[in-house]
Amino acid sequence: MSIDPTDVPIGEREVRDAVERLKPWAHVTPVMTSRTLDARAGCSVFLKCENLQRVGAFKFRGAMNALLQLDEKARGKGVVTHSSGNHGQALALAGSLLKAPVTVVVPNSAPAIKQAAMKGYGATIRLCEPTLAAREAAVAEVVASAGSTLIHPFDDWNVIAGQATAAWELLDQAGPLDAVIVPVGGGGLISGTAIAVKARSPETLVIGVEPERADDARRSLISGEIEPSGDPRTIADGLRTSLGKRPFAVISRLVDRIETASESGIIDAARFLWERLKIVVEPSSAVVVAPILEHRIGLEGRRAGAILSGGNVDLSPFFDALAAKWL
Amino acid sequence: MSIDPTDVPIGEREVRDAVERLKPWAHVTPVMTSRTLDARAGCSVFLKCENLQRVGAFKFRGAMNALLQLDEKARGKGVVTHSSGNHGQALALAGSLLKAPVTVVVPNSAPAIKQAAMKGYGATIRLCEPTLAAREAAVAEVVASAGSTLIHPFDDWNVIAGQATAAWELLDQAGPLDAVIVPVGGGGLISGTAIAVKARSPETLVIGVEPERADDARRSLISGEIEPSGDPRTIADGLRTSLGKRPFAVISRLVDRIETASESGIIDAARFLWERLKIVVEPSSAVVVAPILEHRIGLEGRRAGAILSGGNVDLSPFFDALAAKWL
Repeated sequence: MSIDPTDVPIGEREVRDAVERLKPWAHVTPVMTSRTLDARAGCSVFLKCENLQRVGAFKFRGAMNALLQLDEKARGKGVVTHSSGNHGQALALAGSLLKAPVTVVVPNSAPAIKQAAMKGYGATIRLCEPTLAAREAAVAEVVASAGSTLIHPFDDWNVIAGQATAAWELLDQAGPLDAVIVPVGGGGLISGTAIAVKARSPETLVIGVEPERADDARRSLISGEIEPSGDPRTIADGLRTSLGKRPFAVISRLVDRIETASESGIIDAARFLWERLKIVVEPSSAVVVAPILEHRIGLEGRRAGAILSGGNVDLSPFFDALAAKWL
Repeated sequence: MSIDPTDVPIGEREVRDAVERLKPWAHVTPVMTSRTLDARAGCSVFLKCENLQRVGAFKFRGAMNALLQLDEKARGKGVVTHSSGNHGQALALAGSLLKAPVTVVVPNSAPAIKQAAMKGYGATIRLCEPTLAAREAAVAEVVASAGSTLIHPFDDWNVIAGQATAAWELLDQAGPLDAVIVPVGGGGLISGTAIAVKARSPETLVIGVEPERADDARRSLISGEIEPSGDPRTIADGLRTSLGKRPFAVISRLVDRIETASESGIIDAARFLWERLKIVVEPSSAVVVAPILEHRIGLEGRRAGAILSGGNVDLSPFFDALAAKWL
């Protein structure tokens, strides 16, 4: 597929602006290194800990960057999105900070705990049937009735520019990198990452990783058009979605390669990060570490950045078992 | 109980020396802060993340500091200790780094996974019956037969000076603190902490926290002599032991107060740290955060440091359940 350059209207300037715009609001998350990880990986790995971002995921960057670019009037009318996960929480927090009403359309199949988290930040939850049609109808109705602005979880240039700031910081913090490795879900994070990295360091590889069972980005790059993800059964719940049009335009032009991770590889990588690095990451983040541990990236002796996208995991089974044993 | 000052032969000088001595070997662990934690606690909390220390616990500081002070000949004859947990791993790593043979006397009731970790660093494991007499006999035999030097987990001035370096770093990293809060097990960490903190900032409170079910330090301070801990049933497995003589001499002189934490308070604090701060800490560390979250420290509006002593937790139940569900 040939891509008209005008398909991608954001670049270094928009990322730099987002970095400045987010300064008072988002955390500059730390970059972790580990001798144990480097020894296992055979290369120097720099982990950008977006699990330590506000709401526990990089999603706050994009949601906040988009909301900050609405004028007072638009903010007053509120914003709406659809999400069963981290973007909903991120927009809910952004709205509470900027006093903008937030409505999140949530499939009625979503866990109650996630709905509760969004409500905790003051968002209005609107349940819908778990279908694309029902979701789009619900969003359209909120837009029509309240004049709310849709802030899409990933198919939005302001959101993408916000997500780009994580990789921008990583380059500042880690120094020159031979590759930046990033998970692929709807494509907001990887497209922002690719824009940031290629603007500053064109020779640095940008490598996406997705679950084998949700390899729609890999298939889409082969066919040249967006291949639907279907409803893949993967533990990496943040990566089940199909690519957005805008992210796909960026990925087609700027991403060097897509790798995949098996379900057991994802679980092994998550366990490694929890057990050895003592950090809580969600499976959708661990996916980037799986091919590194399996030496499938081809970076032996080199310097690799990896974005750990979030750390929101349901810990109830673990702590309920502890309580049952000890209380 | 009146304590002769000569009871405590280490002070600022020994701590400074240990800081320098450990520089090439131990991590300067990060200090974490969290708006969410501060809001819940009503004060500014600075978490010294010793869960990110080598072997996942502060214990590496003391073991390495003690081993570094043995001459070549003594190192060549090896060292011995008794431990079913973090100190054994710490000494095993220290020995592997300095090419000193390490023997760890381990009660045969200790989990196989902990023995495997020590063996992984090259230590020799010597099993004994889980009684004090059997343990002491086994250690004495290794000392007699191989000429090994005992490096006690906590009742050793060089070990205590090593543990003191965590609080020393914390004061450098966090700036002035109104209190430093630290768990109490055998007393190595709290006594080192008290020496470091009172040397630099006498007005800073040093507060120990132990499980309600293992409140031997509290009872010992009341009676004026070391009260045995018994075999308390607490989830905080690192804090079940009785105080050592040397730590008790320091605690009696320099520690301002002992607080306790209930089992449910410990589990709630651990869950808070995992879920909101995205860090894996063991229950013996979470114990210091319990009274902070419960507003029982009396530090509202002040600045409190807390040492998260380690992060070694058996994650098998959690990841085995994930694997069973997804693979």
